[in-house]
Amino acid sequence: MKIAVINEISAADRNADILRALEGRGHELFNLGNTSSGDSPALLYIHTGLMAALSLDLGLVDFVVGGCGTGQGFLNAVMQYPGVCCGHLLTPLDAFLFARINAGNCVSLALNQGYGWAGEVNLRLIFDQLFSPETGAGYPPTRAEPQRQGRELLGQISTAAHRPFSEILFALPEAVSRPALTFPAFRAVLETSLQNRADLRAWLSNLI
Amino acid sequence: MKIAVINEISAADRNADILRALEGRGHELFNLGNTSSGDSPALLYIHTGLMAALSLDLGLVDFVVGGCGTGQGFLNAVMQYPGVCCGHLLTPLDAFLFARINAGNCVSLALNQGYGWAGEVNLRLIFDQLFSPETGAGYPPTRAEPQRQGRELLGQISTAAHRPFSEILFALPEAVSRPALTFPAFRAVLETSLQNRADLRAWLSNLI
Amino acid sequence: MKIAVINEISAADRNADILRALEGRGHELFNLGNTSSGDSPALLYIHTGLMAALSLDLGLVDFVVGGCGTGQGFLNAVMQYPGVCCGHLLTPLDAFLFARINAGNCVSLALNQGYGWAGEVNLRLIFDQLFSPETGAGYPPTRAEPQRQGRELLGQISTAAHRPFSEILFALPEAVSRPALTFPAFRAVLETSLQNRADLRAWLSNLI
Amino acid sequence: MKIAVINEISAADRNADILRALEGRGHELFNLGNTSSGDSPALLYIHTGLMAALSLDLGLVDFVVGGCGTGQGFLNAVMQYPGVCCGHLLTPLDAFLFARINAGNCVSLALNQGYGWAGEVNLRLIFDQLFSPETGAGYPPTRAEPQRQGRELLGQISTAAHRPFSEILFALPEAVSRPALTFPAFRAVLETSLQNRADLRAWLSNLI
Repeated sequence: MKIAVINEISAADRNADILRALEGRGHELFNLGNTSSGDSPALLYIHTGLMAALSLDLGLVDFVVGGCGTGQGFLNAVMQYPGVCCGHLLTPLDAFLFARINAGNCVSLALNQGYGWAGEVNLRLIFDQLFSPETGAGYPPTRAEPQRQGRELLGQISTAAHRPFSEILFALPEAVSRPALTFPAFRAVLETSLQNRADLRAWLSNLI
Repeated sequence: MKIAVINEISAADRNADILRALEGRGHELFNLGNTSSGDSPALLYIHTGLMAALSLDLGLVDFVVGGCGTGQGFLNAVMQYPGVCCGHLLTPLDAFLFARINAGNCVSLALNQGYGWAGEVNLRLIFDQLFSPETGAGYPPTRAEPQRQGRELLGQISTAAHRPFSEILFALPEAVSRPALTFPAFRAVLETSLQNRADLRAWLSNLI
Repeated sequence: MKIAVINEISAADRNADILRALEGRGHELFNLGNTSSGDSPALLYIHTGLMAALSLDLGLVDFVVGGCGTGQGFLNAVMQYPGVCCGHLLTPLDAFLFARINAGNCVSLALNQGYGWAGEVNLRLIFDQLFSPETGAGYPPTRAEPQRQGRELLGQISTAAHRPFSEILFALPEAVSRPALTFPAFRAVLETSLQNRADLRAWLSNLI
Repeated sequence: MKIAVINEISAADRNADILRALEGRGHELFNLGNTSSGDSPALLYIHTGLMAALSLDLGLVDFVVGGCGTGQGFLNAVMQYPGVCCGHLLTPLDAFLFARINAGNCVSLALNQGYGWAGEVNLRLIFDQLFSPETGAGYPPTRAEPQRQGRELLGQISTAAHRPFSEILFALPEAVSRPALTFPAFRAVLETSLQNRADLRAWLSNLI
């Protein structure tokens, strides 16, 4: 699976912990946001939310690991966009249930609140449960089918409720789109993926 | 403040706990969803998410208290719609920070997972922090202004990313809109609020 | 390893969950306390604390899984006795750290507070970390030696601070010792283990 | 009420947070352990456990706020001694229930694990519930009487199970008693309280 890690500045010092906790699972990792508290430019959840949703929409990655100080900001930012199902996961049990029931494509971690000593161990235990072959298998298993229907309807609601992503991009305030889309690590992968999207490429080049 | 409580069937037996924990705070309460596990028809988070978002969009209420078994389903359902900022709140500290930093209009509670004995006390302690005169005051207070800007941009993203609510309603699968909008307790307040919305009233009457 | 499960009446309906979560790990299980809420006689943490500590002292088992509604009562009861190191473990991370740092011989679980839906999954995830080959290995590993010294001193303090167990037994109020030591499932294993302890056997037979 | 705050070195940088969270409640505070990570000599939970229990036994204070990285070490250390009832409290709900049900005289806080940003707010919310006029009132209130009996029996068990404190002091390894009892901030209050205890005073002066 292709997994993007996208950190805002407030929790950028957790970035190394997240990467280490994800390693060795056979996934391809993309580290697209801030990587340390001294990083520049500084990303806010407003920006990482867009980066995460766009990464998923363009098929750049299959899953995004994001977060912020409490997890609530990134969660609300990324959920503004179509095609995102994001869990707010604090414990391995949260991850166990989210994988089986919601089978989403994004997680928002609390990376300052409650993140103390051995926080990196908790991340590893969370990912052990999150990236499970049982994803979508339902919990309890007897509820698998109604839970699958719920996910399917959620996808239909997302399509009904949102504008297409390209329209959204044009309508966003520049204070959101510019810092997000011109962030060096993100822009590099973004441009590769837009080779067949002349409209977005032109617009993106105007953001600089 | 006007607060709606909207429960799906899986957690409907917590409904009385939620109401008791909200009482005595001077708020006007609207109990719009399932109220016990034997309730019929049964609402799913797919439905309560729509009911919550529409209640906020129409100005029926100022705040919605929702949730589901883990809190993740309702969260992802209500966040599909414009104008919603929803916290996933498990502890009083979560509520303290969400009120000050995010100042949202919705909360998704975990009402089965981790909801054991004395769960109703935890609800009360959460609401003590959530409905605070410090809402939007920032945490720490020195970060109040950038946190306010974040909330403002989030609102602009929501507008940019979503279709208008009336268009969304028409585009939703009937498996979502019908059970939600025709649910007796909800329909009663909904119809009152649509007196000046002939288009929606007509569409709504067709759902029956 | 020999593991005793000892439940008081308030959490006796979790007994089956605990047993299932412990099974399949190659341990020998002893179910010595209440096994359902209808069980009689009813044990309180005052009793299960004694049963747990005595099971360890006599070498009947190597580890005790206990608990109560919040976990605090059993914890304080079992810790009255010599030779017990008990963790209050709520999450897999708690168990991960307790195994490596404290390497105790007892756990007190919260079996009503916070014990909701999927609580049995959380138990399994906790035990996955608790019964680890890394027990006593230290966390972080560089702190293994001072942590080992801490455990050793704790054992010496326990010996210095407590009377010998047989003296304690004689000095306990009968309201504690009688219900605990005459509880059928416990008494059966207790008597076997007292074959060489004529003094205790005589005293025990007087409790009936 | 007289409250002692006693930190070991690993969590000494939380000492200021604890004091601030306790202030303004009308209690008399005694800060008896390490106060910053650079403090010397360094105390371990082995030492703070003794200091806490002795403070209570001598009536120096009515309550001790202690802890360590995870809370499990201090908990197991202080519980070795007679007359201690210690809660392992992580959330306001834990404190609410411990005050009402267990009404203990000590708390062990997790001061590194899970102690992140806004940890000082969580401490304040915990203390709001812990130091409650409802202490010992039972939860639910209908269970007040059996819960009171449980506490009374726990006290009797403590007396039955432990040697008298002065005997314990003489029997402790010097690696435990010396660093604990000669720690400057603790020794100052200890000596005042031993004016009528010539035996302990003599022994204590030999520890230097």
